[in-house]
Amino acid sequence: MPKHPPEPAPRSEAARYEYAGLDRLLHERARLSLLTSLAAHPQGLVFNDLKRLCGLTDGNLSRHLALLQSAGLVEIRKDFHRQRPRTTCRITPAGRGRFAAYLEELERVVRDSAAAVRLPRRALPSTS
Amino acid sequence: MPKHPPEPAPRSEAARYEYAGLDRLLHERARLSLLTSLAAHPQGLVFNDLKRLCGLTDGNLSRHLALLQSAGLVEIRKDFHRQRPRTTCRITPAGRGRFAAYLEELERVVRDSAAAVRLPRRALPSTS
Repeated sequence: MPKHPPEPAPRSEAARYEYAGLDRLLHERARLSLLTSLAAHPQGLVFNDLKRLCGLTDGNLSRHLALLQSAGLVEIRKDFHRQRPRTTCRITPAGRGRFAAYLEELERVVRDSAAAVRLPRRALPSTS
Repeated sequence: MPKHPPEPAPRSEAARYEYAGLDRLLHERARLSLLTSLAAHPQGLVFNDLKRLCGLTDGNLSRHLALLQSAGLVEIRKDFHRQRPRTTCRITPAGRGRFAAYLEELERVVRDSAAAVRLPRRALPSTS
């Protein structure tokens, strides 16, 4: 009999739950929070409103904004409003695109997980 | 006129996008992947099957499993099968409960984000 190499599992099954599209830059909780806020406010949010919406401290907000800005996902504009300095943050078109792609994978996670947590225990054949 | 303290914003609006329920232990990508796999296979998965489903290396899988085990979310059983050592991983009832709670918050993120990314640009009033 001819020898066959072991059959690889089809890719879709092989790493069924890998979720490679869960981009670490976007998946981190504070940045996910920031991007959702900014996507919901396409004309931008001033620093203090963004801080409040995301429940972040000044330092954390600055740090995560800097990361998103250096990746081109967010733009930050500084100007004056009623003679006081004002910082406005906006999601860029690239940021919106990358967030939409991330969101597709996140929706897949939610579908898979929701199906899984609704399974009755011992519903599946044992691996023993 | 009596002085009033500044009115706090209602909690729901104050940190509308904070997502405090995104438990860091469960939100990390590899652990989210592990928990989804294990929730979908309530009778357990052997180490190599879990590794394949999650697309993880031996080292990463061991490290993340140890974290989940020490938090009581996963249990790990070692025995012999066909005279070879075998490691089987299962999600615990506590793990399933905590994963379900996390998932509720994740579903909220997806709803908010999906609504936000579908917004046309300049749909909302400017903050200027």
